[in-house]
Amino acid sequence: MTPIDSQSAYSPGITLGELAVRFGCELRGDPAVRVTRVAALQDATADAVGFVANPKYLRYLSDTRAGAVILDAATAEHCRVAALVAKNPYATFARVAAMLHPRAPAAAGRHPSAVVHDSAIVDPSAAIGPHCVIGARVRIHARVEIGPGSIVLADAVLGVDTRLVARVTVGERVRIGERCVVHPGAVIGADGFGNAMDAGAWVTVPQLGSVTIGNDVEIGSNTTVDRGAIGDTVLEDGVRLDNLIQIAHNVRVGAHTAMASQVGVAGSTVIGKYCMLGGKAGVANQIEICDNVIIGGNATVGGSIDKPGFYLGAIWVEEAAQFRRNAVRFAQLDKLAKDVRRLARAVFPGERRSETE
Amino acid sequence: MTPIDSQSAYSPGITLGELAVRFGCELRGDPAVRVTRVAALQDATADAVGFVANPKYLRYLSDTRAGAVILDAATAEHCRVAALVAKNPYATFARVAAMLHPRAPAAAGRHPSAVVHDSAIVDPSAAIGPHCVIGARVRIHARVEIGPGSIVLADAVLGVDTRLVARVTVGERVRIGERCVVHPGAVIGADGFGNAMDAGAWVTVPQLGSVTIGNDVEIGSNTTVDRGAIGDTVLEDGVRLDNLIQIAHNVRVGAHTAMASQVGVAGSTVIGKYCMLGGKAGVANQIEICDNVIIGGNATVGGSIDKPGFYLGAIWVEEAAQFRRNAVRFAQLDKLAKDVRRLARAVFPGERRSETE
Amino acid sequence: MTPIDSQSAYSPGITLGELAVRFGCELRGDPAVRVTRVAALQDATADAVGFVANPKYLRYLSDTRAGAVILDAATAEHCRVAALVAKNPYATFARVAAMLHPRAPAAAGRHPSAVVHDSAIVDPSAAIGPHCVIGARVRIHARVEIGPGSIVLADAVLGVDTRLVARVTVGERVRIGERCVVHPGAVIGADGFGNAMDAGAWVTVPQLGSVTIGNDVEIGSNTTVDRGAIGDTVLEDGVRLDNLIQIAHNVRVGAHTAMASQVGVAGSTVIGKYCMLGGKAGVANQIEICDNVIIGGNATVGGSIDKPGFYLGAIWVEEAAQFRRNAVRFAQLDKLAKDVRRLARAVFPGERRSETE
Repeated sequence: MTPIDSQSAYSPGITLGELAVRFGCELRGDPAVRVTRVAALQDATADAVGFVANPKYLRYLSDTRAGAVILDAATAEHCRVAALVAKNPYATFARVAAMLHPRAPAAAGRHPSAVVHDSAIVDPSAAIGPHCVIGARVRIHARVEIGPGSIVLADAVLGVDTRLVARVTVGERVRIGERCVVHPGAVIGADGFGNAMDAGAWVTVPQLGSVTIGNDVEIGSNTTVDRGAIGDTVLEDGVRLDNLIQIAHNVRVGAHTAMASQVGVAGSTVIGKYCMLGGKAGVANQIEICDNVIIGGNATVGGSIDKPGFYLGAIWVEEAAQFRRNAVRFAQLDKLAKDVRRLARAVFPGERRSETE
Repeated sequence: MTPIDSQSAYSPGITLGELAVRFGCELRGDPAVRVTRVAALQDATADAVGFVANPKYLRYLSDTRAGAVILDAATAEHCRVAALVAKNPYATFARVAAMLHPRAPAAAGRHPSAVVHDSAIVDPSAAIGPHCVIGARVRIHARVEIGPGSIVLADAVLGVDTRLVARVTVGERVRIGERCVVHPGAVIGADGFGNAMDAGAWVTVPQLGSVTIGNDVEIGSNTTVDRGAIGDTVLEDGVRLDNLIQIAHNVRVGAHTAMASQVGVAGSTVIGKYCMLGGKAGVANQIEICDNVIIGGNATVGGSIDKPGFYLGAIWVEEAAQFRRNAVRFAQLDKLAKDVRRLARAVFPGERRSETE
Repeated sequence: MTPIDSQSAYSPGITLGELAVRFGCELRGDPAVRVTRVAALQDATADAVGFVANPKYLRYLSDTRAGAVILDAATAEHCRVAALVAKNPYATFARVAAMLHPRAPAAAGRHPSAVVHDSAIVDPSAAIGPHCVIGARVRIHARVEIGPGSIVLADAVLGVDTRLVARVTVGERVRIGERCVVHPGAVIGADGFGNAMDAGAWVTVPQLGSVTIGNDVEIGSNTTVDRGAIGDTVLEDGVRLDNLIQIAHNVRVGAHTAMASQVGVAGSTVIGKYCMLGGKAGVANQIEICDNVIIGGNATVGGSIDKPGFYLGAIWVEEAAQFRRNAVRFAQLDKLAKDVRRLARAVFPGERRSETE
């Protein structure tokens, strides 16, 4: 483990009393103690705030030398250093960390190496980094930051306080809302995958829609969000996408839905609000998933889901020889079930049928 | 749903009579009616052409206000507005859409910020965008478009009418044919993954081949096609690759094969012509898949396939508690099958053997 | 198959006798014969060295016209041309290929289009390509090559002889060791995916750690390695990552572990040394995998593994109708197992229980 951001050393810090007031915590400890940074419990020193949000990390609490720990009331019983008792320790920690380790905003203005089309409308408070390319009629609103090497094609719109970290590609007519963050390598608004087979060759189906992204959306590195064929692909407010995710054309992702890395969602599928998809989950095309659905990692969603809940679909690894034996039996499973039915009929002749018939 | 390309408003349009002649459709309706754009059935107005290619969308046909609908003869029975009856409605729609919504070609010439090696041979009709880098001895043929931020390394060749949309990387000696489209973030011709373990450390195996791509190939965003170790990785004519796909070194993909996003094909595997691979399908190394094979999404192809047809391999999600119960049984499946065999021997003592033994 | 690097024609070559001495092989053949390139057995001519490391390719040995073949003692029996007998033919081939086909280093210095912050410390022997961006206080050591379009953000460190091939993004404070290679599109050190749900919306958890990468690490195209939340994400010496891999925040990958393309490793997981993960394998968060574990392709690792060995987890494709029948049975598997238990009780009443209960 290495120390976190060395720049935290320059923070003037804040007292525990001020922290408690500002973030609505109950303080159990000396309000005059000053902290300047956050740290993991096992690495924390007296100037640092730690947190416990996962019982798995409770074991580090008894030995921590942190100046204070953010935790919930139940966990606070086990805390020997100052406690900041919060209803939602992880969210409170996130806010405290953001306050103690603020990101320096980029300086307003455009780097001389950026290529900005004359017809683009760029707010004077926006920052456009080196080697960016901004196309015709693009609108860039207040305090937008466009990191180095990013490309924003014609007629795109970037809302207030949105940030393209670096080397992001935004396609024609894409609209991104306010306070969004897009990480390096993400491609928003490339053509969807539309091909019609005719006379032995594929005819490309023009992708005439675009992408509409709400506010407070975050998109991970090298994730791709394709433009719609007709009509737009839509990410509603607060959607969170990790890295290397594929969102196909005309997908709609409901507000505050989060997807872990390498998820793939096929064309025209509609996903509800407050869903969570585990890493590598795959979702078929033209289906609907209702609100509040949680999908496990590596799962395959082949049909619509209309009932909120937790769904799994991945078999775990086994030692290779054992897995191979079981996999061979899987390939015989229908036959096995029929054998069992036949046995049941012979052994329990009076019964009508088994549920597995 | 949002309106499609606002620029379609400027299209002079075409009459239904002209459309029918040009695309070989039978018109059932007034040949003088003029349309200017394509639209989804449910959003279409009298100036728009819609289509039905999937029975799933038939329900929108009865209420559409489209100026005309492209469909097949059987579906035309249900059409209350003008019908353009086509043998292949989806392909006909694709061609009509391309005609009504043409893409403006980039202006010929090179942007002053592009870095082009003196020894590169660039056709004067080609367009090289801002912040591109073109290496030594690269050959760029007529009407090629190289979008902003693209990098083409030494000795690569780009055929007539090929387009790198933006931020594409093309490695040394890669040859791309004519009329290809490569989307942002794609990397064609990086080193294949070759490592030999020796004395406790990996020795990198030089990747000395390159990549050869035929005509009319399309490659999606952030897809990677590695160069061969010895000899080339090959994509034959008409191959269509969606986003985030991995094509490993020395793979050969047959003509007109299409792969949905996040497919992975491991090294030296040969895939036939006219295959279709569903999203996230994984194909093992050093195997062969014959022509006309369809692989379902999320499937694992672990061995060669020598029979055309449709193959599946992904179990679908279930409610979590139920899935866990079944997954536990999967891990006992070989034992279960043996139990069934033992039962069968006891219950049907005269029989020789079950097929599942 | 196409000829490999045409530039090999210019190599003065080396005699078999010199090769044998230099790489510790036993030569069975004329030491004065000169070779200038490597080639596949089936394409080799008298000026080329081939190799056999996989019995699958033995069939090409009898007909080869290679000047010499690198192989092991057992295989040498079948070799009719000159043999270079090596203990580890694949590793020896890799070294011979690297010697016969050396990569020309980039010329030292910075391209005039590169944007390098005044406070960056760049060794005069380093090469910085066109359109690169180098941030504040970055340290670039001797003979580093930074290929075109790469971005290295503030306070990052690149060790001696490390190479960013092209269009690589390196985030703030990332430290990369010596002799590493990072392929195009890779993103090292973007924010990890940390979100805390509070009052119906996600609060972003600041990602304050960074990424530490050892020596001799290779990272494939479009792979993403996220920075840690608190503390660093770590790739130890000799790690090899293929393309499109996701390494989440605070993961630690042990020395000399190799991962094939599209693997995903979730947050805070620790993977041991000398592991190998097959393509598309998915590893859950907060688990530990010990040293010397091999995971098959497409497998799901849902829990910790503390025993070295070979683990599998992917069912293979079957013809679609057959797979569907079996998949339906999988969804009934727990019921089926219970039916079998009930049968066993009826048929073998004296037995206490089956192992599958």
